[in-house]
Amino acid sequence: MRTSEKYVKGLRKMRRNIRIGGETVDRDDERMIGAIRTLSATFDYAAMPENEELMTATSHLSGEKINRFCHIHQSTDDLHKKQDMTRFLCQQLGGCVQRCMGIDALNAVSVVSYEADKMNNNQTEYYQNYLKFAERFQKEDLVGCCAQTDVKGDRSKRPHQQADPDLYLRIVERKSDGVVVRGAKAHNSEAAQADEILVTPTRFLTPEEGDWAVAFALPGDWEGITQIVRPAAARSRKYLKIPFEGGMADSFTIFDNVLVPWDRVFLCGEHLLGGPLALLFALFHRHSYTGCKPALTELILGMVALMAEYQGIAQASHIRDKLAEIIMVIELTYAAGYTGSDKGSTKMMTPMGLQEVGPGTHIPDPIYCNVGRCIAGENAYHEMMILADVAGGLPATLPYEEDFFDETTRPYLEKYIMRNPEISAENQHRLFRAFSDMLCSSYGGAAAVGMLHGGGSPIMEKIAITGQYDIEARKKLVKKLAGIKD
Amino acid sequence: MRTSEKYVKGLRKMRRNIRIGGETVDRDDERMIGAIRTLSATFDYAAMPENEELMTATSHLSGEKINRFCHIHQSTDDLHKKQDMTRFLCQQLGGCVQRCMGIDALNAVSVVSYEADKMNNNQTEYYQNYLKFAERFQKEDLVGCCAQTDVKGDRSKRPHQQADPDLYLRIVERKSDGVVVRGAKAHNSEAAQADEILVTPTRFLTPEEGDWAVAFALPGDWEGITQIVRPAAARSRKYLKIPFEGGMADSFTIFDNVLVPWDRVFLCGEHLLGGPLALLFALFHRHSYTGCKPALTELILGMVALMAEYQGIAQASHIRDKLAEIIMVIELTYAAGYTGSDKGSTKMMTPMGLQEVGPGTHIPDPIYCNVGRCIAGENAYHEMMILADVAGGLPATLPYEEDFFDETTRPYLEKYIMRNPEISAENQHRLFRAFSDMLCSSYGGAAAVGMLHGGGSPIMEKIAITGQYDIEARKKLVKKLAGIKD
Amino acid sequence: MRTSEKYVKGLRKMRRNIRIGGETVDRDDERMIGAIRTLSATFDYAAMPENEELMTATSHLSGEKINRFCHIHQSTDDLHKKQDMTRFLCQQLGGCVQRCMGIDALNAVSVVSYEADKMNNNQTEYYQNYLKFAERFQKEDLVGCCAQTDVKGDRSKRPHQQADPDLYLRIVERKSDGVVVRGAKAHNSEAAQADEILVTPTRFLTPEEGDWAVAFALPGDWEGITQIVRPAAARSRKYLKIPFEGGMADSFTIFDNVLVPWDRVFLCGEHLLGGPLALLFALFHRHSYTGCKPALTELILGMVALMAEYQGIAQASHIRDKLAEIIMVIELTYAAGYTGSDKGSTKMMTPMGLQEVGPGTHIPDPIYCNVGRCIAGENAYHEMMILADVAGGLPATLPYEEDFFDETTRPYLEKYIMRNPEISAENQHRLFRAFSDMLCSSYGGAAAVGMLHGGGSPIMEKIAITGQYDIEARKKLVKKLAGIKD
Amino acid sequence: MRTSEKYVKGLRKMRRNIRIGGETVDRDDERMIGAIRTLSATFDYAAMPENEELMTATSHLSGEKINRFCHIHQSTDDLHKKQDMTRFLCQQLGGCVQRCMGIDALNAVSVVSYEADKMNNNQTEYYQNYLKFAERFQKEDLVGCCAQTDVKGDRSKRPHQQADPDLYLRIVERKSDGVVVRGAKAHNSEAAQADEILVTPTRFLTPEEGDWAVAFALPGDWEGITQIVRPAAARSRKYLKIPFEGGMADSFTIFDNVLVPWDRVFLCGEHLLGGPLALLFALFHRHSYTGCKPALTELILGMVALMAEYQGIAQASHIRDKLAEIIMVIELTYAAGYTGSDKGSTKMMTPMGLQEVGPGTHIPDPIYCNVGRCIAGENAYHEMMILADVAGGLPATLPYEEDFFDETTRPYLEKYIMRNPEISAENQHRLFRAFSDMLCSSYGGAAAVGMLHGGGSPIMEKIAITGQYDIEARKKLVKKLAGIKD
Repeated sequence: MRTSEKYVKGLRKMRRNIRIGGETVDRDDERMIGAIRTLSATFDYAAMPENEELMTATSHLSGEKINRFCHIHQSTDDLHKKQDMTRFLCQQLGGCVQRCMGIDALNAVSVVSYEADKMNNNQTEYYQNYLKFAERFQKEDLVGCCAQTDVKGDRSKRPHQQADPDLYLRIVERKSDGVVVRGAKAHNSEAAQADEILVTPTRFLTPEEGDWAVAFALPGDWEGITQIVRPAAARSRKYLKIPFEGGMADSFTIFDNVLVPWDRVFLCGEHLLGGPLALLFALFHRHSYTGCKPALTELILGMVALMAEYQGIAQASHIRDKLAEIIMVIELTYAAGYTGSDKGSTKMMTPMGLQEVGPGTHIPDPIYCNVGRCIAGENAYHEMMILADVAGGLPATLPYEEDFFDETTRPYLEKYIMRNPEISAENQHRLFRAFSDMLCSSYGGAAAVGMLHGGGSPIMEKIAITGQYDIEARKKLVKKLAGIKD
Repeated sequence: MRTSEKYVKGLRKMRRNIRIGGETVDRDDERMIGAIRTLSATFDYAAMPENEELMTATSHLSGEKINRFCHIHQSTDDLHKKQDMTRFLCQQLGGCVQRCMGIDALNAVSVVSYEADKMNNNQTEYYQNYLKFAERFQKEDLVGCCAQTDVKGDRSKRPHQQADPDLYLRIVERKSDGVVVRGAKAHNSEAAQADEILVTPTRFLTPEEGDWAVAFALPGDWEGITQIVRPAAARSRKYLKIPFEGGMADSFTIFDNVLVPWDRVFLCGEHLLGGPLALLFALFHRHSYTGCKPALTELILGMVALMAEYQGIAQASHIRDKLAEIIMVIELTYAAGYTGSDKGSTKMMTPMGLQEVGPGTHIPDPIYCNVGRCIAGENAYHEMMILADVAGGLPATLPYEEDFFDETTRPYLEKYIMRNPEISAENQHRLFRAFSDMLCSSYGGAAAVGMLHGGGSPIMEKIAITGQYDIEARKKLVKKLAGIKD
Repeated sequence: MRTSEKYVKGLRKMRRNIRIGGETVDRDDERMIGAIRTLSATFDYAAMPENEELMTATSHLSGEKINRFCHIHQSTDDLHKKQDMTRFLCQQLGGCVQRCMGIDALNAVSVVSYEADKMNNNQTEYYQNYLKFAERFQKEDLVGCCAQTDVKGDRSKRPHQQADPDLYLRIVERKSDGVVVRGAKAHNSEAAQADEILVTPTRFLTPEEGDWAVAFALPGDWEGITQIVRPAAARSRKYLKIPFEGGMADSFTIFDNVLVPWDRVFLCGEHLLGGPLALLFALFHRHSYTGCKPALTELILGMVALMAEYQGIAQASHIRDKLAEIIMVIELTYAAGYTGSDKGSTKMMTPMGLQEVGPGTHIPDPIYCNVGRCIAGENAYHEMMILADVAGGLPATLPYEEDFFDETTRPYLEKYIMRNPEISAENQHRLFRAFSDMLCSSYGGAAAVGMLHGGGSPIMEKIAITGQYDIEARKKLVKKLAGIKD
Repeated sequence: MRTSEKYVKGLRKMRRNIRIGGETVDRDDERMIGAIRTLSATFDYAAMPENEELMTATSHLSGEKINRFCHIHQSTDDLHKKQDMTRFLCQQLGGCVQRCMGIDALNAVSVVSYEADKMNNNQTEYYQNYLKFAERFQKEDLVGCCAQTDVKGDRSKRPHQQADPDLYLRIVERKSDGVVVRGAKAHNSEAAQADEILVTPTRFLTPEEGDWAVAFALPGDWEGITQIVRPAAARSRKYLKIPFEGGMADSFTIFDNVLVPWDRVFLCGEHLLGGPLALLFALFHRHSYTGCKPALTELILGMVALMAEYQGIAQASHIRDKLAEIIMVIELTYAAGYTGSDKGSTKMMTPMGLQEVGPGTHIPDPIYCNVGRCIAGENAYHEMMILADVAGGLPATLPYEEDFFDETTRPYLEKYIMRNPEISAENQHRLFRAFSDMLCSSYGGAAAVGMLHGGGSPIMEKIAITGQYDIEARKKLVKKLAGIKD
C-alpha cells in the first residue's frame, strides 16, 4: 500500500491543468492543502495496525492486502466494513473523507462493464479493460474520483434535445486508437487530488442517446482535460489552531475533445446500460453516505451537547428533544445502510425483475440505501437550525480571532464570553468559533449543500424508492383485506 | 401446539370476570369476537406448513417445537424471525396481531427474575418460578398479555407520593402462601382473550418504593381480578362483508387485594430491578413494533396507491412524494428493528455500563429499537392526513352501506361514485368504505392512538434514546476536533 | 327575523326526499336532530340583544334588520363581522355552525350573476333573478346551503372528457319554462336542514363546457332532487349529558332531470364565468373558515390546557410548546382572515388584472384568505396528534359510560381515573370522554376530515395562492438586486 | 431632515473607539462601508418625494416633518406605515435596513420612562429626560441602535446569581453627576454606524436586581465605551458588480465603568419595570420584523422562481408547492403584523390585566406580533433548504468569478453553465452567484442566523405567546361544552 508521502509526491508530478481564480496553479496550491490532507489521512489511517481489519482488505483479484478504498466488495461483510470505515474516518477528520467516490465508481463499473460484454455476446472487452484498470488501481493504491454529474442544460429536456448536445458529455468520434469525448462534469469532487477520474453517465438514456452512453477512466491530467476548481476549507486560524485542518475541492471538469484509448473504455454506445450504471454508482455512493452522514451528524450532536453544557442548559427538556431528534437521524441513517448491506446480494432490480448481475460484486439493497440517504439529506438544514438555536446569535457576531488576542480587547472578551465558570474562556471561544465555522462560513455553507445534494438529492432518492419498491404487492394486500376482487 | 378451537374452548371455561357496558359478559361476547379471531389466527397460521420456519421455534427448555409466540429468544436469528413473523401476520390480518405482549413480557421477565436471584445471592427463587411458568406456557401454548401501565394518578408525583398509593399497583401484604397486591392496570390489551396476565412495574423506583416492585403472572380470571373491557372493531358490514373481521379489546384490569401464590411471583420488593424490568419489556415490545408498524403502514401505502389509481391520479407527482414518504417510514422502522436484532446480545446497559445479564435470553439493541419505534409513532397522524388527503372528503360523507343496496338509491350511488371507468362501482365503494373505517370510525381512531402510544409514546423513546446513547463520546470527538483541552 | 321554532316547523312541512340507511326519513329524524339544533342556534343567538351588532345587519336591499347570515357584505366592517360572528358561534356551539355556506354562496352569486348580465350586454336577467331571490331570502330569513362539489369521476379528465358526462352536473335541456339539469353534488353540507340549495360550478370550464356552466337556487325538496344523507353527531350520552348536542349532516344530492324555472337561474352556459363563480364561492368560504377554524382550534387549545392541568403536567415545557404551536395556528389563521377583510374591495383578480366587479359586494383579499385557510388545514391532523399526545392512551381504551355508573365497577373506575386529587372523578371522566369523542369516534374522524378538506383542501389553496400572487414582481426585485438585465 | 452625506460626515467625526481584528479603525473602514450604505439609504429614500407619505411623519412633539425612523407612533396608521416602510426598504436594499432598532427602542422607552415616573409619584424625571432626548433625536434625524442583549453568562442562573455580576450590565455607582454602569451588550447591531446607543434591560428582574434595572442613551463614542465589531457583507465582486452592496456590522459593546449623566437616564433601579421595557422593545421590534422578514422572504421567493425558470422547471408541481410554502410564510407574517397594528392600542398586558400605559404611544398587539415573528423565524433554515433544493449543488461548487472572465476558461464556463438557451450565460452566472452568496458565504450564514434569532428567537416568542394569551378563557369554553362544573 502507498504512503501518503508518495501520494502527494505523485500529485506534484502531474500536468498543470488546474485552474483557480483565473490562474493555472499547482496541485498542491495552498487553497487545496486541506483536501490533500484529508486524502492523505486515508493512507495514514490504513497503515495503522489497529485499523487493519477495518481499513484494509484482501483483493479478490491479486490476493494481496490492499487499502479498502480500492476494494471490490465480495460479501456482506465487505459492505458492513465499507460503511463502518467511512463513518470512522469521517469522525476522525470531522468531515467528508473524499475517497468514497473512487471506490463507489470502481464497484459500479465492475458490474456494468461485465454486463455490457454479456449483452454484446462478448464482442466487446469492457470487463477485461476494467480488470486491467482495477488491478493497477489496487496495486498502485490509487485515488479515484467519479465524474458523473453532467451540467444538464435545460432540465426539462433530454440529452439529445438540448440546444447544445455537449451539455451532457458525449462521444463525438470513434477512432482506431480510441474514442473522442466532449462535455463537462460538474461537482467533480476531489478530481484535482485524484490520480484517476472515472467517468459515468448521469441518467437513463433512450435509443437516440447511444453517444451519451460512455464510461471510462483517465488520469486527472490527461490531454484535453481542464479542471476549474472551487476549493473550500475552514478559515485558517491565526491563534487557535485546530489539530486537523481538512478541506474539500470540487472541479468543474472540462473534456475538450479528449481521446480515450480503447483499453480505458468501459462502455461505449450501449444506451440500455447508461441508466443502470448511473443508478449503480448512486447506489454504492448512497451506501457510503449511510456511513459518512452519521459521522457528520454525530459531530453536530456533540456540538449541541457541548454547547448546552457550556451555556448551562444541558438539563433543559428542549435540549433533550433536540439531542433525541439528532440521534434519530444518525442511527436511522446508519441502520438503513446496515440493513442495506445485510440484505445486499449480487442481484439488481431490472425491468425484467431482480436479476443476477456482474462478476460477483456485492451490491447493497437499493431501498434501504435510498431511505437512509434520504432521511439524512432532508434533515441537513434542520440540523443547521438546531445548531443555531442552541448557540444563539454569537456564531454570527463573534468578533474576529485577533480581537481575542489583542491586549486591549482580550480582557473584555475573555470576561464577557464566560458562561459556565468551570470552563476556560479559551475553550468557550473555541466552541463558538467552531459553530461560526459551521454556520457562518463559506465552508460550512458548502458542507450543508453537500449534506443535501451529495450522493443525490432527496428527490432523487424518492424517485429511486418509488420506482423500485413493490407497491403492487401492497395494493394486493389491501384488495385482499378490503374484499376487492378484480 | 394448540389449535385455535382449543384456545377458544379454553376461554369459554374461564370465570366470568369480564365487564362491558355495565354488564358481566362472556369471554366470547360478540363485541370481542374480532379480538378472538385475531388471536386464533396466531394458532392457525403457525399450524400451516409453509409458515413453520417463521412461526415456530424449538424451545431451549424442552427441545420441543413450539409456537414462536411462546419462545425465549436465543439468538440474533430468533430476533429477526420474531420481527418478521410480526410483520407477516399483521399484513395478513390487516391490523395488530395482539399476541406480542405475551412473548415480550415472557422474555423480559426471563432476564430480570434471573438477575433478581443473583442480586439476592440466590436467597430467592424467582427464576425457578419463572422457569416452571415458562415451561407450562410453552407446553400448553398459552396466550399471555402484559399488564404494565399503572393508572399513575398525578403525573408530577412519584408512586409513593400519590394521594392514593394504589394508583400504582403495589404489595399490600406478604403472607405465607403468597403476596397480596392492589391496584389497576390500564391499556391491558387482549387481557380478556388471554390465558395468563403477566404483571410488571411501569417505571424506575426509588428505595422507598419496594412495595411497588412486583412482578408475577396470574390467569386472567383469578380471584380478585375484574376486567372492565373496551372492545374496538370495525363496524360490521351488512352487505359488503370483508374476508377477515378482526378486532381489539383493552382491559382496565382491577386487582382488588389479589393473592398471588409465591410460585407465581417473579419479583417482590427489589426496587432496583423495577426500572430495568419496565425498560426491558418496553424494549422487547418496541422491537415487536418494528415488525407490526411497517405492516400497518404498508396497508396505508397500499390504500394510498390504490386510491390514487382509482381516482386517476396515480401519476401525479404529489402522489409519488406521499408514497415515498410512507415507504421511508416503513423501511426505516423495519431497518432499525433489523439492526437492533443484529446488534442484539445478552448484554444490557446498566448504571455500571454494558453488562452481561440473564440466562442467555437474546436482547435487541435498545438504541435501534427506540429510534425505530419513535419514527413510526411520530408519523402516525401524518399518515392519517395522507389518507384523508388522497381520498378527499368522501370517507366522511359516504352514505350508509344500506343506501348502496336500496333499490331507489343504488342506481344513483353506483352512477356517481364512479371514477376510473375500468373499476366496478362496488370496488370503488369498497375502497372508500375501507378509508371511512380507518379515518372516520371509533376503531380507526383507536388504531391511530395505538400507533402513537402503543409500546410507548415517542417521548418515552426519546427519553430512552438520550438516556442510553453515548453522547459523551461525541462531545469528546468535538473537543478533539475543535482543539478543546479540558 | 325568523325564530328557530318557525324554522324547524318549516322543515317538517317539506317533501320527504331524504334518504338515510336505505329508508325515506323525516327531516327531523333523530339522527339529524343535532344538525337542526346547530342551525337553530343561528336564529336564537341572533335574537339575543347582546349579539345584535355582531349577528344582525341592515340589508342594503330592503333597509331592514336581517340576520347577518343573509347579508350581502357592503364594507370591510361587514367582512370583519362575518368572520367574528362565525368564530363566536363556533366557540359557543363547540363545532361547525353550518350556516356559512348559504351566506358565502349568496355573496358569490351576487357578483357573478351581475357580471354575466354585463358580459351578455344585458340580454340576460340573471342579476334580476338573483335580486328577487336574495330579497325573499333575507325577508324570510332562509337557511341556504351550497351544492358545489361535483362528484368529478376520473380526476385526470375534464368534465366533457368523462365517460359519463353527468359526473359534473350539467344542463341537459333548455325549455321554455326553465332549464333541465342532471348530476350529483357531494359533500352538500346541511342540505337536508336547508330551505334553499344554491348550486354553482366547481371548476374552471373550457369553451366546450358551456353546458356545465350553470348556477341556480332551488328549495331542498324540489321535484327531482333526492338527498342521500350521512349524518354525524357525537355519541349521545346516557348519564353524562352535555349542555349542547350538536351535529352535522352531509347530503349526497342527486339532481335527476330537474327543471329549474328561469327565474331561479343565475348562470346558464357562460363557460367563462364558471371558474370565477367557483373561485368566488371558495374565497368567501375560506374567509368564513378563518372564523370557524380559530374557534375549533381554541377548543383544542382549551382541551390540551385542561388535560395538562388534570394530569399534573401544566408546567412541563413540552406542554408550553404545544400550546404555543396551537395558538400560532389559531391566530395566524385569524390574522390572515382579518387582513383579508381589511384588504378587501369590490375588485377581483381576472386574466385582465385586478378589475372592478359586481354590484358593490365587498370581496375579501384572496391571498390572505387562502394562506389563512391553508395553514389551518395543514395542521388539522397535527392537532389531533397533540390531543392524543397529552391525553395518553385512555381516550382509546376508556370503558363505556355505563361502567362508570354501574354499582360494581363505579368504585373501581372512580378510584383509578383520579389524577389531580382536587378534581372530581366525574370531571376527569368527562374530560376523557370529550377526548374520546374527538379522537376515537366517527364524529371526531369526520370533523378532522372537515378541518382538512372543508372549504377546499390545502392543495386547492396552494393553487389559488400561486395562481394569484404577483411572483413576477418578486423576480423583478431579484433581477434588480442581482444586476440581471434582460 | 438630514442628508446621508451629513450622516456619514458625522460618523467620521466620532471618537475612534471601534475595534476590528485587533486594530482600532475608522467608522468608515471599508469593512463597514456596506452597513453605512444601508443606513444612508434610509435618508436617501425618505428624501424622495414619492416616498414622503410612507417614510416621513409629522412629529407629535415638534409638529415638524421627520424621518419616520424617528417617529413615536401615535396611531394605528403609524404602525401600518412603519411595517410597510420596513418592508419596502428591505425589498429595495435586498436585506436588513438596520434603522429599526432605533425607532423600536425610542418607542419602548417612551412608555416605560413615563410609567416609571408615575410609579415613583413623579419623584423622578425619566420621561422629561426622554422627551429632551427624543426631541433632539427627531430634530437632528439621528440614527439610534439598541443595546439590549446582555452576555448573560450561565443561562441557568439569574443576573444576581452569576459568578461575575457584570455578565448583565449593571449600575456600579450612583454619583451626583450621573450613574456609573459596567457590562457588555452582544449583538449590538449597527452600533458602529449609530449616533446614539439606547440601552435597555434584557429580561424580567427580581427585587434583588434593582442594579440591573437601568436604561439610558449615550453617543456611540462616549468615554468608556469600546465597540468590538464583527462586520458582515457579501463578497465584493470584481467583475459582476451588483447595483447595491449593503452590509451589516454587529458590535460587541463594552461599557467599562461608563458615567451616564442623569439627563440621559430613563430608568435607574426600578426592577419592576425592567421586564416590561425588555418586553416592549421586543414587541416593537417583532412588529418591525413582520415588515422586514416578508421582504427578505420575497427575495427568496423571487430567487426560487427565477432559478426554476432558468433551470426549465418552472412548471414542475414541486416548484409550485415550494412557492406556495414561501408565500404562506411571507403573507402570514405580514398579516400577523398588520393585524397587530390594527388591534394595537395604548394599552399593555400587565400582571393586573390590560392597562392603559404611557404618554399615548401606540403599541401593537403582542399576540399577533409574536405569532408573526415566530412563524418567520421557524422557517428561516427551511427557506435556505428550498434555495439549495432548487439550485442543486452549483452554489457550493461554482468556480470563482475570475475563472468566468479568464480568456482560457471563460468559453468553457459560458458554454457549460447554459440552461435555458434564451437566457444569457452572464445572467445565469449572476443568479448562481447570488445563490452562492446566500447559501455559501459568511454573510449568508449570518443572515440566516439573523432570520432565526433577530428580534428574539422562536422560543422567546413562544414564551411571550403562552404567557399573554388568555388560555383560561379557552379552558372555560371547554368546561362549558363538556359539562364540567367546578
